[in-house]
Amino acid sequence: MLVALAGGVGAAKLLSGLAAVHDPSELTAVVNTGDDLVLHGLHICPDIDSVTYALAGLDNKTTGWGVVGETWTVAENLRAIGGVTWFQLGDRDLATHLFRTQRLSEGATLSEVTAELARAREVATRLLPMSDDPVRTWVTLADPPPGAAGEVAFQDYFVRLAHDVAVASIRFEGAAAAAPAPGVLDAIASAERVVCCPSNPVVSIGPILAVPGVLDALVARRDAVVAVSPIIAGAALKGPADRLLRELGHESSALGVARLYAPWAATLVIDEADAALAPAIEDLEMRCIVAPTVMSDPATAAALGEVVLGA
Amino acid sequence: MLVALAGGVGAAKLLSGLAAVHDPSELTAVVNTGDDLVLHGLHICPDIDSVTYALAGLDNKTTGWGVVGETWTVAENLRAIGGVTWFQLGDRDLATHLFRTQRLSEGATLSEVTAELARAREVATRLLPMSDDPVRTWVTLADPPPGAAGEVAFQDYFVRLAHDVAVASIRFEGAAAAAPAPGVLDAIASAERVVCCPSNPVVSIGPILAVPGVLDALVARRDAVVAVSPIIAGAALKGPADRLLRELGHESSALGVARLYAPWAATLVIDEADAALAPAIEDLEMRCIVAPTVMSDPATAAALGEVVLGA
Repeated sequence: MLVALAGGVGAAKLLSGLAAVHDPSELTAVVNTGDDLVLHGLHICPDIDSVTYALAGLDNKTTGWGVVGETWTVAENLRAIGGVTWFQLGDRDLATHLFRTQRLSEGATLSEVTAELARAREVATRLLPMSDDPVRTWVTLADPPPGAAGEVAFQDYFVRLAHDVAVASIRFEGAAAAAPAPGVLDAIASAERVVCCPSNPVVSIGPILAVPGVLDALVARRDAVVAVSPIIAGAALKGPADRLLRELGHESSALGVARLYAPWAATLVIDEADAALAPAIEDLEMRCIVAPTVMSDPATAAALGEVVLGA
Repeated sequence: MLVALAGGVGAAKLLSGLAAVHDPSELTAVVNTGDDLVLHGLHICPDIDSVTYALAGLDNKTTGWGVVGETWTVAENLRAIGGVTWFQLGDRDLATHLFRTQRLSEGATLSEVTAELARAREVATRLLPMSDDPVRTWVTLADPPPGAAGEVAFQDYFVRLAHDVAVASIRFEGAAAAAPAPGVLDAIASAERVVCCPSNPVVSIGPILAVPGVLDALVARRDAVVAVSPIIAGAALKGPADRLLRELGHESSALGVARLYAPWAATLVIDEADAALAPAIEDLEMRCIVAPTVMSDPATAAALGEVVLGA
């Protein structure tokens, strides 16, 4: 059994690569829910959905988010009547949110709904939310726009403000009182290998680590943990990971990631572009593997999956 | 100013007819919300929506419900993943529910949202929910199907069970504690005429009357109230009004309707098919107007509007 800690798009790519080179039914993904939101009354789990769609082969490779072959009838009508449209929801994607919200209102847990949606999409990989309890990432802006709140919900920062603003701090509301979802700690404890996907260390992996028990479970399995750096040549391929690392006092480099992960990960996979950082990373008592880490297509994702499995 | 008490489709037709022969901005509709529901987390107001769509010229005349030119992408995807689909929600219609639910979650009242949606659809008629407080119609089944609950929510009865079951009783949860929406009592008190649309007396007009203050306001304006019988030749044109009247101990006829409405309506418009009932209705101290009441197209709806205005 393989366990992976997962955020959104980067994780979805590596999980697809792993599922191509490893029995997907022997793969468990523990997925960030800190960036979940309720909009229009609908419970939306962007990272769970990104991972599910990718593993189902339904991810939209053109946009990099959402569902392939998506249509926008609801969104166009919502725009026409003056509704909130900064968070784009396609028609196929909406069916997921309607399903989830209805099931949660019936008393199902997020774990149960996530499993049902994965089964409906014929995803063999076991998908676990990091917690069934609500954890919400809040972002304090360094220089709030005039009239704006100083602290905004994650998707306000990420989508509405297009993460084009400076961040002073991050907090994970509800994390201290949250329990890991059923199976999360057991999966980490019993896995042959724990993979930390190339996701945002601060706002994708950070919330997972903030759920009580998870960090301890990882520390106990440090030798089995292989992380993949999401930072290549100092930059994130997508999203604000580089900027967030700098703004929160870290170094935006594979070495900066290594410093954050060293307490609980014995191995870090870094890109060939960062080969020169390997000695400094090994000084942190991490094994450093240098490999191509840009997953531009299924073949390169599968190749990175092989690297992680062989680590 | 004209005020109309309204349920769903029958009311939508008469309101359209009235708006064709009377300044629509001098028309206020007080609309039943007892059959509202929350499904998939979305706040759905079937009667308000039927009235709004009809007055906007967006009603689907083929199905008799929903929006013209509707598409079903979300519903088809929801069905594919095993979601709840007995209450059909088209893509254009969904935009309404997303808008309403978001605005309610932001703290807007149902009155405010209803006005916003009417304005967005360029509806000049003033639309008021009967109350901003939740009132929910519950139906006790006379012979619950094996394993089914004895009492079901209105849309479970109306849509899921296709109202093809016997009813023992009806109650309007929340009605006793509900306040009329702002403007409802004033509109009734100051209207030149109050029209009771040909809606289901039990489950469309009944909830409006159950909101404290409305019945008293109508009784005080009895001379100004003109009701249109929804029962023609003993039957409802659409829906279970005839069956419900019988099951709840009333007579399914224009005379049965007259007996229910006589305390607060001085005039009843009945169909030509029921002309023979006029003397018995007048014995109830109601004026009885005999006219064509089947609204099969805009012209017949406008003609009935003229009859009501001239009453």
